[in-house]
Amino acid sequence: MNAATGPVAIVGGGLIGISWSALFQAFGHDVALYEPADSARELVIGRVERLRAQLADVLPVKSVPGNIRVTGVLEDALSDACWIQENTPEDISIKRDVYSEIEKFAPPEVTIASSTSSFVWSTLSARMMEPQRLITAHPFNPPHLMPLVELYGRDVARVTAAVEFYRSCGRHPVVLKREAVGHIANRLSSALWREAVNMVAEGIADVSAIDEALVYGPGLRWSVVGAHMAYHLGGGPGGIEHYLAHLGPSQEQRWKDLGNPSLDAKTQELLIAGVRAEAAGRDISTLETQRDDGLIAAQIALRSRRP
Amino acid sequence: MNAATGPVAIVGGGLIGISWSALFQAFGHDVALYEPADSARELVIGRVERLRAQLADVLPVKSVPGNIRVTGVLEDALSDACWIQENTPEDISIKRDVYSEIEKFAPPEVTIASSTSSFVWSTLSARMMEPQRLITAHPFNPPHLMPLVELYGRDVARVTAAVEFYRSCGRHPVVLKREAVGHIANRLSSALWREAVNMVAEGIADVSAIDEALVYGPGLRWSVVGAHMAYHLGGGPGGIEHYLAHLGPSQEQRWKDLGNPSLDAKTQELLIAGVRAEAAGRDISTLETQRDDGLIAAQIALRSRRP
Repeated sequence: MNAATGPVAIVGGGLIGISWSALFQAFGHDVALYEPADSARELVIGRVERLRAQLADVLPVKSVPGNIRVTGVLEDALSDACWIQENTPEDISIKRDVYSEIEKFAPPEVTIASSTSSFVWSTLSARMMEPQRLITAHPFNPPHLMPLVELYGRDVARVTAAVEFYRSCGRHPVVLKREAVGHIANRLSSALWREAVNMVAEGIADVSAIDEALVYGPGLRWSVVGAHMAYHLGGGPGGIEHYLAHLGPSQEQRWKDLGNPSLDAKTQELLIAGVRAEAAGRDISTLETQRDDGLIAAQIALRSRRP
Repeated sequence: MNAATGPVAIVGGGLIGISWSALFQAFGHDVALYEPADSARELVIGRVERLRAQLADVLPVKSVPGNIRVTGVLEDALSDACWIQENTPEDISIKRDVYSEIEKFAPPEVTIASSTSSFVWSTLSARMMEPQRLITAHPFNPPHLMPLVELYGRDVARVTAAVEFYRSCGRHPVVLKREAVGHIANRLSSALWREAVNMVAEGIADVSAIDEALVYGPGLRWSVVGAHMAYHLGGGPGGIEHYLAHLGPSQEQRWKDLGNPSLDAKTQELLIAGVRAEAAGRDISTLETQRDDGLIAAQIALRSRRP
């Protein structure tokens, strides 16, 4: 199961499959891409090359990329694959059929990583002979440029191998403890957009103002520190504990329109422990310095591009 | 009311007042800071200087900064001010008392800009002799580094002057059409954090995984394009209309846990019209190119900083 050194099979040559192909090829993997539609197959090589060119500005790619071949025969793409990245349409019948076919041709020790955005592991794997070989490995959009990969699987060794594999290709994987529709990032995005749409519908601000407020405000901040860490640093020297004690109630008040969790004692404990683990021994002052370095660098970089 | 060329009065020398002082001074304004607490006053000059040093990496500051003087007498700080930035604690009595005092000493043509995060314009201005002279001008945290300023006021000329003034100091102001508690950005942040806390409480993922998913996923994206624009670019060549037609229903399903708006025909029209205005004649391909340039630049900048 040495994913890092063998060929990768890409199942499905749409945007996501193309993006994965560019990434894996750039990091020296040979890629075999299966795409059933003739017209789409013809476009693959050119599209993958263009994406690979963009990647070189962003990541420490290999000087010699892997090879790529494109086929309309699934068995052909799977023949010596060490890793299988599945990127078929978000249709449960299509996906289950494809897993059934893959299981005929690829031995069980080869992990099937599904790029699914909508389905959870237990739904996808329900009819498989070897469900443990499936993991969900969801990229973010646009896939060839975004570092995030969200992982879930029931086989710890496979998930660990997945973390190493995607890291070796310059991605930043995170692992879910429990499967969830939308994984993590799209749930966060959906929650935020819900309030954005609410503000548009209520006439509070127009789309541009809301988008700009995000880009020049929390978006910029969240490209450097996460939501919890931001509050940990927004509570002064007392950190997240101080934030929760003093501003927790006002957040809960605002949430009354938004949903169901409460900042009860148990949840506060989870948050505090989680932030402490994330701080990993770094004190507030150190965290603030690192955050500011990131904000400065990102702003300089962004500012130089503004038309 | 020529804010761009005159001295600025800063009322309140906490973090927000210090940050504004650094900003205005860096752009050539003389600053007069009022802070009632002796111990805090002693720290102002040093703190402002340190923040100004950070600003120089980020913004096109003037080679010769404005002067700064610190006083414990409010009337003294207001004496020749062309602009008043109020940064007192988030306590309505404190703020109303301070406006009452300011109105005694500063003529009505001088705008009072409140940095309030919690209160809306109508609450703040309720007891003023000249309520129209008040605007809310809320910075984001950390104030000396974040470009966003959220503006609301009832006097169009003053709000317009505020936009020009903050822009002249390197800020990126946005204007609300209707006052709202939390303005825009903190409403978005609160909506997102609500789901983040939900995922922690439900055991879906831990704090670190959620924060990383945000930083390496939507946070990074939202430092370049807003939430609406991201969906506009996530709908393929059909844009936001296509996105709403095909993925609107799944978003609404997910929102059932989150809140109250619906994607009815009227709301869809507002969204489509708003995105069109934001696109300002640029086509999908142009928008995608600009987005990718931003993602590349930000990632290079961020990557070079990672410990």
